[in-house]
Amino acid sequence: MSKKPLILITNDDGITAPGIRALIEVMVNLGDVFVVAPDSPQSGMGHAITLDAMLFAQNVEISKGPQKEFSCSGTPADCVKIAIRELLPRTPDLCVSGINHGSNSAINVIYSGTMSAAIEAGIEGIPAIGFSLLDYAWDANFEASKPYVKKVTENVLKSGLPKGVVLNVNIPNAKSGDIKGIKICRQAKSNWVESFDKRKNPQGKDYYWLSGKFVNLDNGEDTDEWALENHYVSVVPVQFDLTAHHFIQQLNTWNLK
Amino acid sequence: MSKKPLILITNDDGITAPGIRALIEVMVNLGDVFVVAPDSPQSGMGHAITLDAMLFAQNVEISKGPQKEFSCSGTPADCVKIAIRELLPRTPDLCVSGINHGSNSAINVIYSGTMSAAIEAGIEGIPAIGFSLLDYAWDANFEASKPYVKKVTENVLKSGLPKGVVLNVNIPNAKSGDIKGIKICRQAKSNWVESFDKRKNPQGKDYYWLSGKFVNLDNGEDTDEWALENHYVSVVPVQFDLTAHHFIQQLNTWNLK
Repeated sequence: MSKKPLILITNDDGITAPGIRALIEVMVNLGDVFVVAPDSPQSGMGHAITLDAMLFAQNVEISKGPQKEFSCSGTPADCVKIAIRELLPRTPDLCVSGINHGSNSAINVIYSGTMSAAIEAGIEGIPAIGFSLLDYAWDANFEASKPYVKKVTENVLKSGLPKGVVLNVNIPNAKSGDIKGIKICRQAKSNWVESFDKRKNPQGKDYYWLSGKFVNLDNGEDTDEWALENHYVSVVPVQFDLTAHHFIQQLNTWNLK
Repeated sequence: MSKKPLILITNDDGITAPGIRALIEVMVNLGDVFVVAPDSPQSGMGHAITLDAMLFAQNVEISKGPQKEFSCSGTPADCVKIAIRELLPRTPDLCVSGINHGSNSAINVIYSGTMSAAIEAGIEGIPAIGFSLLDYAWDANFEASKPYVKKVTENVLKSGLPKGVVLNVNIPNAKSGDIKGIKICRQAKSNWVESFDKRKNPQGKDYYWLSGKFVNLDNGEDTDEWALENHYVSVVPVQFDLTAHHFIQQLNTWNLK
């Protein structure tokens, strides 16, 4: 009988979030599970790491089950680093991050703590997947997501992932029967158009609240946005070699000598 | 006579850092300069944005000159967002970030607040460049960097950059005469091997300090690491479409239907 895979679970909504609880419920059927997740919400942290402060990490029991759990004071990327170097008995066979409360499709991958954890694991050579549900609510319903989380994970455990590639999986906010299936996609071109709500504090000093509207600039039918709008689960392979190889030749013609 | 370009300057070491002062000194000769930079150091912030707190931004005068300056309580990416939407008279023609105290070559681009600011501008369709000097010291000497900063910037102002591409420029820590020139490069494959220094606080609770060693895994002579080790300034074109296009075809053969 083959040894069970060792699975590291993390997220950016914090260790008590319902999304990570749903992910644990799926993963305990697929391997030996270690949870190392932030002790508080870390959304929008991007690939932040803690360079100038100490980190706490302690064994906790948030929900009953065979998993071992550690709550960490750092960012999602910190959690992966400390899990691999300090807390796990060996290098994990897989790292899964999420299930995020809210979309990490299109340009959101850049800002996403969920995906930065998966990317951090990928940098360490560990196959990794980030999962996100298109519902920001704390009491979002993760039931319809579970079969898709299981299917994608089983495929990664079976086939592995090439070096330098992790998966970004987004799941439409729909009932089980309404999800049409899984589409392999590219990241849609998009941005956020921010607005700043400018106010004065009681001492008369200006301050701002950031808010914004997501804008899809991409009409392609091969994008994650298209898939999600059409009730498909989107799977985008993501790389962390950011080199724009297509522009190197032209740059070499510039007057830079 | 053509109108002077409007140049936005930011960084991640904070608005008072010598590196951003050096960048301002170069840029005031090339255009009208607005500085919108963090009020405190933000190294290792990756592409973090402030979603759950208010932001302060106030007009300040850190050093004499024609530039207008704003100190902002947010991350580098926040600074670019608030600059574009609230503080600048119009969309800037260029965004430059840095000069960072320390390398942002190879995998460091992922963790870099300096580069996240440049990428944020790129997402907004603004040509953008991140500059970093390979010297972490606060009193690093930026004199030898200035001619290279000027040359790369002049080229970008003249030729523009394709949509979706920004430049990551790293400068070796060497005297003027010892820098051999500029090389167009790709991002070297590399990672950090972390070690955690585990201690106990006075109450007996474990805590950790993160430290690590950078490891270049790449023998290519077309990488930024090779260029820097050989005393060249490295210029890597960076994209924020993270799709691993080369893996899409194979993913489509997986059992995901």
